[in-house]
Amino acid sequence: MSIDHSNLKPEELQPLDMKRERERCSFDMDGMTCIFAGNRTSRDRSRWLMALLENHPEKAFDKSKRPFQGRTERFMVGQKIALEYFQLRNRYGLPKEDRDLLRLYLDEYITLQVHESMGHPTVQNQASEQQWKEWGPKIASGQYLVSYAQTEMAHGSALAGLRTTATFCPESDEWEIHTPEPSAGKLWIGGSGSTATHAIVMAKLIIENKDYGMHPFFVALRDPDSHKLLPGRYAIDMGPKKGAPSMDNGYITFDHVRIPRNTLLSRFQTVDSKGKYEVQNQQGKLLIRGTMTLVRVGLCEIAAHHAARATLIAVRYALIRRQGTPLPGQSKLERQIIDYPGVQQRLFTAIASSYALTFAARYMRSIYNELQSELQSKGNSPLLGMVHGYTSVLKPVMTTESYNVVWRCRKSMGGLGFSAASGLTDLENSQPDANLTYEGDNNMLLGGPASNFLVKELNACLKNGNRPGRIELAYLSKRPRSGERFEGSNADLLDPQRQLEIVGHRAARLVYALHELRNGGSGKQGEESTKPYLDARLAARASRAHGAYFILFAFNHTLAALQEYARNGQSSEKIGVNIKTEHLKALENVRNLYALEVCIMDDLSEYTQDGYLDEKTIHSIERHIATIMQTIRPDALGLVEAADLSDWYLAAPLASSDGRAYDRMIEFMKSEPINQSGHSGAGRDQDGVILGFRQTIGRLTHGEVTPWNETEAKRREAERQKERTSKL
Amino acid sequence: MSIDHSNLKPEELQPLDMKRERERCSFDMDGMTCIFAGNRTSRDRSRWLMALLENHPEKAFDKSKRPFQGRTERFMVGQKIALEYFQLRNRYGLPKEDRDLLRLYLDEYITLQVHESMGHPTVQNQASEQQWKEWGPKIASGQYLVSYAQTEMAHGSALAGLRTTATFCPESDEWEIHTPEPSAGKLWIGGSGSTATHAIVMAKLIIENKDYGMHPFFVALRDPDSHKLLPGRYAIDMGPKKGAPSMDNGYITFDHVRIPRNTLLSRFQTVDSKGKYEVQNQQGKLLIRGTMTLVRVGLCEIAAHHAARATLIAVRYALIRRQGTPLPGQSKLERQIIDYPGVQQRLFTAIASSYALTFAARYMRSIYNELQSELQSKGNSPLLGMVHGYTSVLKPVMTTESYNVVWRCRKSMGGLGFSAASGLTDLENSQPDANLTYEGDNNMLLGGPASNFLVKELNACLKNGNRPGRIELAYLSKRPRSGERFEGSNADLLDPQRQLEIVGHRAARLVYALHELRNGGSGKQGEESTKPYLDARLAARASRAHGAYFILFAFNHTLAALQEYARNGQSSEKIGVNIKTEHLKALENVRNLYALEVCIMDDLSEYTQDGYLDEKTIHSIERHIATIMQTIRPDALGLVEAADLSDWYLAAPLASSDGRAYDRMIEFMKSEPINQSGHSGAGRDQDGVILGFRQTIGRLTHGEVTPWNETEAKRREAERQKERTSKL
Repeated sequence: MSIDHSNLKPEELQPLDMKRERERCSFDMDGMTCIFAGNRTSRDRSRWLMALLENHPEKAFDKSKRPFQGRTERFMVGQKIALEYFQLRNRYGLPKEDRDLLRLYLDEYITLQVHESMGHPTVQNQASEQQWKEWGPKIASGQYLVSYAQTEMAHGSALAGLRTTATFCPESDEWEIHTPEPSAGKLWIGGSGSTATHAIVMAKLIIENKDYGMHPFFVALRDPDSHKLLPGRYAIDMGPKKGAPSMDNGYITFDHVRIPRNTLLSRFQTVDSKGKYEVQNQQGKLLIRGTMTLVRVGLCEIAAHHAARATLIAVRYALIRRQGTPLPGQSKLERQIIDYPGVQQRLFTAIASSYALTFAARYMRSIYNELQSELQSKGNSPLLGMVHGYTSVLKPVMTTESYNVVWRCRKSMGGLGFSAASGLTDLENSQPDANLTYEGDNNMLLGGPASNFLVKELNACLKNGNRPGRIELAYLSKRPRSGERFEGSNADLLDPQRQLEIVGHRAARLVYALHELRNGGSGKQGEESTKPYLDARLAARASRAHGAYFILFAFNHTLAALQEYARNGQSSEKIGVNIKTEHLKALENVRNLYALEVCIMDDLSEYTQDGYLDEKTIHSIERHIATIMQTIRPDALGLVEAADLSDWYLAAPLASSDGRAYDRMIEFMKSEPINQSGHSGAGRDQDGVILGFRQTIGRLTHGEVTPWNETEAKRREAERQKERTSKL
Repeated sequence: MSIDHSNLKPEELQPLDMKRERERCSFDMDGMTCIFAGNRTSRDRSRWLMALLENHPEKAFDKSKRPFQGRTERFMVGQKIALEYFQLRNRYGLPKEDRDLLRLYLDEYITLQVHESMGHPTVQNQASEQQWKEWGPKIASGQYLVSYAQTEMAHGSALAGLRTTATFCPESDEWEIHTPEPSAGKLWIGGSGSTATHAIVMAKLIIENKDYGMHPFFVALRDPDSHKLLPGRYAIDMGPKKGAPSMDNGYITFDHVRIPRNTLLSRFQTVDSKGKYEVQNQQGKLLIRGTMTLVRVGLCEIAAHHAARATLIAVRYALIRRQGTPLPGQSKLERQIIDYPGVQQRLFTAIASSYALTFAARYMRSIYNELQSELQSKGNSPLLGMVHGYTSVLKPVMTTESYNVVWRCRKSMGGLGFSAASGLTDLENSQPDANLTYEGDNNMLLGGPASNFLVKELNACLKNGNRPGRIELAYLSKRPRSGERFEGSNADLLDPQRQLEIVGHRAARLVYALHELRNGGSGKQGEESTKPYLDARLAARASRAHGAYFILFAFNHTLAALQEYARNGQSSEKIGVNIKTEHLKALENVRNLYALEVCIMDDLSEYTQDGYLDEKTIHSIERHIATIMQTIRPDALGLVEAADLSDWYLAAPLASSDGRAYDRMIEFMKSEPINQSGHSGAGRDQDGVILGFRQTIGRLTHGEVTPWNETEAKRREAERQKERTSKL
């Protein structure tokens, strides 16, 4: 920096800082945005979708007022957002991937979300051909809006516990849907509280007192013309919750509601007018089961996206925020906060997670695509169980990591991270949090299905001559020896294969230990009662260990592919980018940080309690990390801007791309309705005095309140004195 | 359980479950509530204060509508809450401790908060006698409402960076307060946005171009009669932030504002009409510095309180929520979720933290009281530095632990934890989160002041013949040997002294290592650039280690005192309770869980990377924990209900004391304004149809929208197909 900036005001300095940071970046940005997106087409498509929203002629997707709106207002505005989303979707004939992205970019969980992601696909997949012919056109066009009613208030979403019944009434050829008690009401049903016309209701199918288990029924909720609730249906909005203000999650009960026999979705079973129940088309069910894992794959992608979004915001802010002592040997300016080691610790690991999650989610998606094409061509695939198992690990591991990234990013912004101008307060409270619980509580998944899958795979591996089912389980091929130590040089710690070996040792050790525990364990007497506790603890650890291995494997895989494309000159053809050495070097830094910090140091006890890593190795790792932090520093902005998210989408005045954080923050504050006067919803009178002041706090300033009771005050003060000394 | 409940509906079962859990508890509840509060007087006082709010004749403190109110409405209602708070405070002559508690129980961060906690005390402490005589009565009675304006937008609250000036104008005997640029505006100033009449403005005092540094000025903001802003003042609400909706944190700028010379708070310095600056009364400043540490002591107490509150809610819910498979050998009912090991892992450690934080905060308060009485009697105290240092460790450690407890408790409630009916969504977003950043970002404190204090104490200890400055630093007396191993039997792991020894080893190892690093460290060449990184990492770890030691020490101390009282028959006299063996046993269980799980297992790598704890010991600890979990189980409800918080205060329908969670949840949902019609703010028309539907989503259901573009759809679908295969 040749020019002395030390006399500039912060607001003048900020755009210069941002510009200089862009110039420092070692790699070409166009290339990195394509690499981050997977290829040029994907990047351009995302840009186009985001711009569709930003440039909507009626500004229906404006986000600037949202921070100031209460839940009711958010819901009301959200109805318009939902409508205009649907019109865009139709106008451009958007395929599922594009629709999913467009809804993500809305940044508002609209009432139509469940119709699009669950209602429509469920009817399409599970209705008979005849039924789909009848209902399909109206469902696809949005004339029928279909919510999905499985969860019950007292029973969650586990099918076995549900109590809503569908009893066959042969005399009228109908089903009677009934909620036996209020706590069996359907709860959380997205879209049902106010807007949906229909619901797929999961109910116990009963014919002549025989219970056939839970089945899906296509139930009309509201009158197609007046939108009034139909007789016997009760549906209300379930009230405020963390996140999703514009979604009408509903509570629904049915009071002996009669619906035609034909409302049972009949692709996989039929019931005739005599009440004869027949299973149909079982083979087709496999395809459906494949599709169901897609939700979890999607959650992994969303987790990666939010991590990238939060990291972009926090890094930008850390570059234009100056505070505290100058950097030694530099200008007299206060230091950019990104130059504090503690801030780098938070943010550069966030960058590493963002890349790792992005590559891992894409790698998982490619396995899923493989599964789908096998199912389509062969009707079945050994990948089905694998994809189910992998996603039961990755969903909890990746959503947790993403949430932690978002949280850490907000925290790195200090006090201003609490302002809605950070663009992170609403984000943190919405999807990244919900995804930890949605589709299976993360703790439950890690301790249950995820770990069961790993033990099953280990069993299969042992039976198959120590050959694991897939390469991402390669660590299972070798039972870790007791007393095993990592042997490697300082340089080995930066070798991708050696890093994976370390992370694999942990995974193998824990999965083998869990396997042993479940197969009788120590065999000691009197330990039966403690076993469930030891199992719960170990199972979650084993699952997380596999997650770390998978993600690091995917990072290596992606980087190796990029290196190969670059080496063979295929990169333009393959992904539309001219990959350069600088791209690869920057990504290697990020990968090294991810492996050493996130995979190893953040879970260090997993590598030390069996003595696998010793103090000397740990110190080497710490020094490597310190060096990597400094290498990443000049590329920090480029790495986060590779996510290619527009200012409109970020809606974060403090992280605007021009660096003018303080100017933008002041604009933001001025737009707070409490500061306005003269229109409905404003907070002040014409003199700028806050409404209601004179009748409340103004009575205090005008001396019109109960006077201070000095007698009582003395008595109480003495009591407190005594209490202070006697208290424990 | 002799009666078969398996045919009861969940809503019938819940109150029975709650009743049975109360009966299972091993100890007398009246006693435990007093132990938890510190003594009977404290418990009764809290009850009384809470009841004052609950039973307010105008129901001014009603909380039932809050979850449904947007920020503007919360703010408007908050003004009334603020007024009525002040009337109660006056009517009953409440001393500071009681006022602080009353504001805590309001559960709403009122505009008067800063006047009470900062504005009033600062003027009282720093004004000259003459000034206090003039302003004091109006400040004490609330006619002057005083905000505290230190933080600036671009510079945070560190005094060195602030840019607001106060220039002496001898010609008019005035100060000119000025904001040099918008980013130097005062930000976050609680109460200033709309309500305060005055502000203490921290500004650079300048006389004849000489800068005397930051000084406090008592500046009128608004006209006492009309409440309009006075000339040259600009003050607005800073807009929405995470938490504190009813607080008007403000942004203030001054445009060459002239104020009388006498507005400089003059207890510690004076400026005469000639512009002569004189220091005054320096000795008195020590007392003020003592008082300033009180804020952090208070944050520790609040941290403990919120942990107790969240734990009470989550444990109650876990007792009346049944889901999944029955417990082996028990009734056919679904299991109470508290009987899953994973849930116990989350909740029983939360109970342990709640007790540990409560006892540690009280212990810290007793050291503070000791300091105050020494300052009062002797004018100085060696405890001053100690209290400052301890609180710089405990504030970050305890607020972080409390936040994690609140978060974990909400998560333990699964989907319903997201509903505002959990009583945790608002809590999590307010004080427990703000306290992590307020009064010094936790990461910054741990890496900076906290660790500096510990290194300083180690230096002093080494100079003083290995005698640490206080008993809570006893671990410093012995430099840990390299290769040191914990030697102890299985039973030793339950011995309080041996537990403390383990936790002390960690603290000693890290503080000594930090000391060594800062005194030259390894001395290797070329490591200067990595040193700040290694320091930041180690410093935070050392500070956390001391925090764990302090808290466990305080737990042991409290339990030992209770044991002694019980042994000597002094417990009624000392704390108004008949302490019984069952109380002590229950507390021992909790202490053991805290030591083994929270202090050791949650930071396991700190004990394993130097090989101090080996695998065998770790397995013993894990088995102990499993056993303790089962011992705590019957006392779970009693332990959390010892916090003695009323249903009114908890405002958590899902955790109501009668167990009727589902009934209460349904009442809650029905009160959502979106479900109402016929009054202002209601969401539905007379037919129960959501407002705005016909103009928005209704156009979709009536088939009035842009039709699906099949041509485009086909083209895009083909594009997506291609993209899927090419993507990295």
